[in-house]
Amino acid sequence: MSLVAVGSVAFDSVETPFGSRERMLGGSAVHFSLAASFFTDVRVVGVVGADFGAGELAVLERRGVATGDLERIEGGRTFFWRGRYGFDLNTAHTLDTRLNVFGDFRPALSPASRSARVLFLGNIQPDLQRDVRAQCDRAAFSALDSMNLWIDVARDSLVEAIRLVDCVILNDAEVRMLTGEASLARAARAIRELGPRLVVAKQGEYGAALYSDEGFFALPGYPLETVVDPTGAGDSFAGGFLGYLAAHAGEPLTDGLFRRALAYGTVLASFNVEEFGTERVQRLTPGEIEARYRELRNMTQFDAVPFTRPA
Amino acid sequence: MSLVAVGSVAFDSVETPFGSRERMLGGSAVHFSLAASFFTDVRVVGVVGADFGAGELAVLERRGVATGDLERIEGGRTFFWRGRYGFDLNTAHTLDTRLNVFGDFRPALSPASRSARVLFLGNIQPDLQRDVRAQCDRAAFSALDSMNLWIDVARDSLVEAIRLVDCVILNDAEVRMLTGEASLARAARAIRELGPRLVVAKQGEYGAALYSDEGFFALPGYPLETVVDPTGAGDSFAGGFLGYLAAHAGEPLTDGLFRRALAYGTVLASFNVEEFGTERVQRLTPGEIEARYRELRNMTQFDAVPFTRPA
Repeated sequence: MSLVAVGSVAFDSVETPFGSRERMLGGSAVHFSLAASFFTDVRVVGVVGADFGAGELAVLERRGVATGDLERIEGGRTFFWRGRYGFDLNTAHTLDTRLNVFGDFRPALSPASRSARVLFLGNIQPDLQRDVRAQCDRAAFSALDSMNLWIDVARDSLVEAIRLVDCVILNDAEVRMLTGEASLARAARAIRELGPRLVVAKQGEYGAALYSDEGFFALPGYPLETVVDPTGAGDSFAGGFLGYLAAHAGEPLTDGLFRRALAYGTVLASFNVEEFGTERVQRLTPGEIEARYRELRNMTQFDAVPFTRPA
Repeated sequence: MSLVAVGSVAFDSVETPFGSRERMLGGSAVHFSLAASFFTDVRVVGVVGADFGAGELAVLERRGVATGDLERIEGGRTFFWRGRYGFDLNTAHTLDTRLNVFGDFRPALSPASRSARVLFLGNIQPDLQRDVRAQCDRAAFSALDSMNLWIDVARDSLVEAIRLVDCVILNDAEVRMLTGEASLARAARAIRELGPRLVVAKQGEYGAALYSDEGFFALPGYPLETVVDPTGAGDSFAGGFLGYLAAHAGEPLTDGLFRRALAYGTVLASFNVEEFGTERVQRLTPGEIEARYRELRNMTQFDAVPFTRPA
């Protein structure tokens, strides 16, 4: 089943306690597509400038990602972000943001993308998310990501976009911020009452939680002694999650399927942060993914043995 | 198997967004003992003043907690804490702390307490923890809790205390602070290299993680729409964890046992925070504990189905 992802395509310059890189391939649509490509056919929708070369395109194409919907603006420059992470790697400090061609991005999907079964609306302006959702109206399952900026400046449009999708994937702080609820469980319920069947709350190193009609499910983050670069972790998570779902989009979408998808999302995010940018995911193998999925499962299982209080 | 807990016995005045209470029975040894009492025989070691009445004692004794090692200082007053929690309930703002008789606490264990098989050293000055550990030298399993204050002002003594126990139970921020490691996995390893077999990192609403020779295990917090009063959650967690272990102290201490203990700790903490102080735990039943344990297990299980990439 095909999966279409719309979002940013970027060059990222990143500094962490473990080193720095200049102008790496990045952006939400890139991290998402590479992660999802291990599970299903992916088409990426985005915009790049003349500085986006054959080398960058090849990274996507080597993973089988269809790049026909990457609009190229001659004379323009690709979205650029420069950031720094401190000691705890939890917070990105933005040093420079240049929207460049991304500032005028108006996604126009090809017929192939319009017929996708599964749609991921990466973190872009909510009006554009709604427009893409309308273009891709045959999608059987759709999900969106967003950020604090849009909650601040385009809340009404974001709420309308949320009404149109099956799944919302946000950081837990954003789930709270969007709803004004301090309790994550209440906040997730408030979002589901807008329409989405699923709310996925990303919790960084603490993992992720899934709220649905079937109840609550949560997984810890895969424990890493060294996180080299957290950039793109959330998008890799979403890519693993939706990639796995898209691969099974012809089957009933059961709670068990959503749980396994959340585990694959967790696994893909954990690989993404082991090296800078897309470096680790570029040479990732299906066998490594399977092995870590099994490890994660082993890290979260416990027996159903009742306790007995001694007499 | 008997379990001995040493720690604070207190009166807590607490204000949260859901209301307030004056001079509730509290303190680490109280929350711990009540939680552990569902699993095993518990003896509580602490100090109280003349203001500690028959009503407070009865709360412990109704749960079968042995109070013979609660030293009563005539003319003295019991440890008092006043605090307030804001909107997100994650941070306690201390408004008043009066150590009173707790400031001169020198635990002297009765013969019955000295022969305990399992020992919990609640959050008290690390010199005292070491002294109690020496008094209770036949314990087959011992654990300690601590806090940022002791890491700041008595780090060397705390490290010596840690060398003497089998298990360290701390908030994840304290695990990092103690070791200076930003990575929780590295920080836990550094503590285990001091001697303890287990490090349990409490993560508030995110749950808890267990680091041992057998690897990593983690559980989310039980999802509650309303947390009324988080005071004592960490001690209730430790009580459920060690109470379950103590009930099985005659068996081999396997990884599976530790995992189930972590789940029971998570369950007891979740009940504790549903109402003010010890109110909810006072009328908790074994059946409720079992039911929530099963629920928690259902919230964390997923299948070992490998993915297959379509051709």
